[in-house]
Amino acid sequence: MAKRLGSQTVVFDKQPIILSGAAIVGKKEGDGPLARYFDDVVDDEYAGEKTFEAAESRILKDTFSKALEKSGKAAADINVILAGDLLNQSTAASYAFRDANTPFIGLFGACSTMSESLTIGSMLIDGGSADYAVCAASSHFCSAERQFRFPLEYGSQRTPTAQWTVTGSGAVILGKDGQGPRIVCATPGKIIDQGIKDANNMGAAMAPAACDTITSHLKDLGRSADDYDLILTGDLGSFGSSMLNDLMIKNGIDMKNKHKDCGTLIFDLEKQGVNCGGSGCGCSAAVFSTYIMNQFRQGALKRILFIATGALMSPTRSQQGESIPGVAHAVCIEA
Amino acid sequence: MAKRLGSQTVVFDKQPIILSGAAIVGKKEGDGPLARYFDDVVDDEYAGEKTFEAAESRILKDTFSKALEKSGKAAADINVILAGDLLNQSTAASYAFRDANTPFIGLFGACSTMSESLTIGSMLIDGGSADYAVCAASSHFCSAERQFRFPLEYGSQRTPTAQWTVTGSGAVILGKDGQGPRIVCATPGKIIDQGIKDANNMGAAMAPAACDTITSHLKDLGRSADDYDLILTGDLGSFGSSMLNDLMIKNGIDMKNKHKDCGTLIFDLEKQGVNCGGSGCGCSAAVFSTYIMNQFRQGALKRILFIATGALMSPTRSQQGESIPGVAHAVCIEA
Repeated sequence: MAKRLGSQTVVFDKQPIILSGAAIVGKKEGDGPLARYFDDVVDDEYAGEKTFEAAESRILKDTFSKALEKSGKAAADINVILAGDLLNQSTAASYAFRDANTPFIGLFGACSTMSESLTIGSMLIDGGSADYAVCAASSHFCSAERQFRFPLEYGSQRTPTAQWTVTGSGAVILGKDGQGPRIVCATPGKIIDQGIKDANNMGAAMAPAACDTITSHLKDLGRSADDYDLILTGDLGSFGSSMLNDLMIKNGIDMKNKHKDCGTLIFDLEKQGVNCGGSGCGCSAAVFSTYIMNQFRQGALKRILFIATGALMSPTRSQQGESIPGVAHAVCIEA
Repeated sequence: MAKRLGSQTVVFDKQPIILSGAAIVGKKEGDGPLARYFDDVVDDEYAGEKTFEAAESRILKDTFSKALEKSGKAAADINVILAGDLLNQSTAASYAFRDANTPFIGLFGACSTMSESLTIGSMLIDGGSADYAVCAASSHFCSAERQFRFPLEYGSQRTPTAQWTVTGSGAVILGKDGQGPRIVCATPGKIIDQGIKDANNMGAAMAPAACDTITSHLKDLGRSADDYDLILTGDLGSFGSSMLNDLMIKNGIDMKNKHKDCGTLIFDLEKQGVNCGGSGCGCSAAVFSTYIMNQFRQGALKRILFIATGALMSPTRSQQGESIPGVAHAVCIEA
């Protein structure tokens, strides 16, 4: 039985284990600083399919297969798939897993999906509802751009605070037993809306949510940032990361030395022309599932807090003049 | 601790309790046969807001307040909100709960969302990750039509197999203790795609998924349809319902006398011009949360199987010529 602690943290009894992780990314991500950690790089943005949307499903499906293979488990061992993406009606995940022959729980947390799936996956395994689960998320630059902003053919200019949607996906196999880092607790986040209306400044829309969840997490556990080797946010980018650290200082927490962001890790911001860095569900999913898992295996990390961050917006609501709500879910992982 | 049974069923130890349910619907639903069970009928399709999307969020938010009030719980007692809808990027739910100050888990299961949220909510409460949870879903005829089909202003003709998206929402408060019907087990569904491509025949796209989940459920528990007072599907409509019963016969299960569908219950199909009946997340959510809960209170029901059904499609993938995957999640509820 899990135990509730403080306002919103859940401490696990069984501590579900991350048996394996895998990521497949696009060419630009394959040219970035984390290239060697990814399982595969797909140079063709169509990934051999006819549309960008089908390509995203293909990448997600192949990532799942890779994670499964690395876990040593069979497809039949998996009790539930917990996955989502950014596409309308979450079709990247639905189509990726339509042949999986495994119960499927669709999640929507925008770019917070990876930690949302880890949160729910851990809760299900800890409570006995699943023995093994897949947690996965994906995004694709081309499918996301035309859906949220403009078709690529328009050649629209990008604003300085814009981020670059990652083409890629990440998946981990969570289990009740086995070898690997353990998920010891989770702090699911509240929706926070501070009135940001600029759909080209997602970092600013998501930073307050990250701040709220991290603050609650530390308070619930009576910890400080120094209790972690790393506090890893999803895709705040450089602008959002700076904003998060300023907001945390206002809450009396200095975490700057412990903080990194998947959106600034996955690209070389100086050389790759990605403005404030990477974004998209696939960004934190790919970085967490491979680079971070590798750091655990190397012994470089003993305890981290992983907080993927999501901007819960749609073009429809933004065009109606609405502000952008954010959400961030945190999971604490120990070696 | 929950126990896994057979291929995909989870039997709960604590048996989470449905403390209360509420529904708010639109005018057409308020003119239908179940009118007296709903908590409120909103005659204005804008619900006092400026857009259909904002109206849907308003209705969902007010439904949550109503369910909370009926449960006798305070907002601060709720540990997690599990909700979703049909809109792009699930904004009905995200915007409805942005001021809730409660952890939010966004779900996407299209019209299967209500039983998806009951499934996950039960798993979380049973496992100790939550003491009290809200499970909710919504849809709105006007926001759905313009997103999935055509703007209403076009006055498009409807095909004979079309269904009418329900304007409305339903919410229940689930708890670890209290009075009410209990969720005794759940069978989360697999994605099933039988190649249906007609976005105006959702019943046919979803019926195979319902068949698969119900068959697995009965097999896992070694039960027959006669062990239930009612097998209630979400929004298959008249065409999909007939197809489901035929598919079940092929699986050797005759459930016709036990089966009802929320999509055919919520409207008078003869008089209300809704073709095959109601659809949308809000359809099964509203019917389940009020009419069915009332039947339990009256003692008319002792054990039911509730299977909301979702068509995991998007206009983008349909325009690309893709078929429509379906999913259906089942929860068994006892007095």
